[in-house]
Amino acid sequence: MTHQDRHVVFYHAPQSRSRGTLNLLEELEADYELRVLDLEATRQPAYLAVNPMGKVPAILHRGMLVAEQPAVMIYLADLYADRGLAPALDDPLRGPYLRWLVFYGSCFEPALIDRSMQRELAPPSRSPYGSWDDVMNALTGQLAAGPWLLGGRFTAADVLWGTALHWTIGFRLVPELPLLREYVDRVHARPGMQRAAAREEALRAGRS
Amino acid sequence: MTHQDRHVVFYHAPQSRSRGTLNLLEELEADYELRVLDLEATRQPAYLAVNPMGKVPAILHRGMLVAEQPAVMIYLADLYADRGLAPALDDPLRGPYLRWLVFYGSCFEPALIDRSMQRELAPPSRSPYGSWDDVMNALTGQLAAGPWLLGGRFTAADVLWGTALHWTIGFRLVPELPLLREYVDRVHARPGMQRAAAREEALRAGRS
Repeated sequence: MTHQDRHVVFYHAPQSRSRGTLNLLEELEADYELRVLDLEATRQPAYLAVNPMGKVPAILHRGMLVAEQPAVMIYLADLYADRGLAPALDDPLRGPYLRWLVFYGSCFEPALIDRSMQRELAPPSRSPYGSWDDVMNALTGQLAAGPWLLGGRFTAADVLWGTALHWTIGFRLVPELPLLREYVDRVHARPGMQRAAAREEALRAGRS
Repeated sequence: MTHQDRHVVFYHAPQSRSRGTLNLLEELEADYELRVLDLEATRQPAYLAVNPMGKVPAILHRGMLVAEQPAVMIYLADLYADRGLAPALDDPLRGPYLRWLVFYGSCFEPALIDRSMQRELAPPSRSPYGSWDDVMNALTGQLAAGPWLLGGRFTAADVLWGTALHWTIGFRLVPELPLLREYVDRVHARPGMQRAAAREEALRAGRS
């Protein structure tokens, strides 16, 4: 695929969940066009015509919509496979890589929302995640070997988890365990993460 | 990858969500070894050593765990890419394909559980899916063109959605709209789906 073919349009709302995708695009040194909107605008007809769920992140590539952050990340890291942030299809890490990206949307986010709203848990046969402790134990167990989620190799899954743990620890939704704090700091020390932080800061300040 | 290399171990509980993966393995004519357990056994130490989340489906391939149904399906359909149920990495349908597989775990299941438990909705800024109607409208909008979720091409995403809509309509969690009924019937008419149904029936009857 030529450089031109890899151009993506990225819908981003500052200070929202789409920050993870901004971080990944910078880590990939991707060719992307930023379309900035606020959260209110994500629920207006102009954007609903792009993504009927009214959510960010969303990207358009060759005119096709890709939405749902784990899907967006899997897609982008494969599109820029030469950057090395996605294990290849025949790499033994490919399965664990997909597992932890999907786990974010299927287990961690539902657990986080139930916890933040102090909801009664669903019975185990129906719940997608069991209990909050199940989610935290699985995650900290996976991170224990380190330095990255999949061990020695940094991947797009670290961009998602490093970003998510940063804001969830910040909001005191996730406990600031040394293991998690060090992991978040390690992810945020990367050059692409720092470029993304500068870009986000400029957006907040209205400078770009 | 040789035939031998594609052998997978599949952890399955009859009459559970892992049915979707059974259906896909049969559609792929995959080389798989079935390990059957009941839902109670999924929360026992022997299985927690395989998948710490205590959930099915899970697969082992070359000794690596892949869990979370959308991830399992993305992985398997790529492993058996020659069966044609996964758009290739450079196919324009790849992005929509990933989007709808991930949407199942990130939006549909959380919406389904909140609805079945008659919970108060999370505020839009926090919710992964908005409202039940948002989810249903996005899904029926996508299926309207048909005959499959991505239009003319049948993919692993149809195995997931055909299976999920079958049981959720059966439990009256999802309305039996003609569009959805016809789609479910179309998916279930496929030979692999029928082989899987026969295998599940035999498991329930204790014959295998």
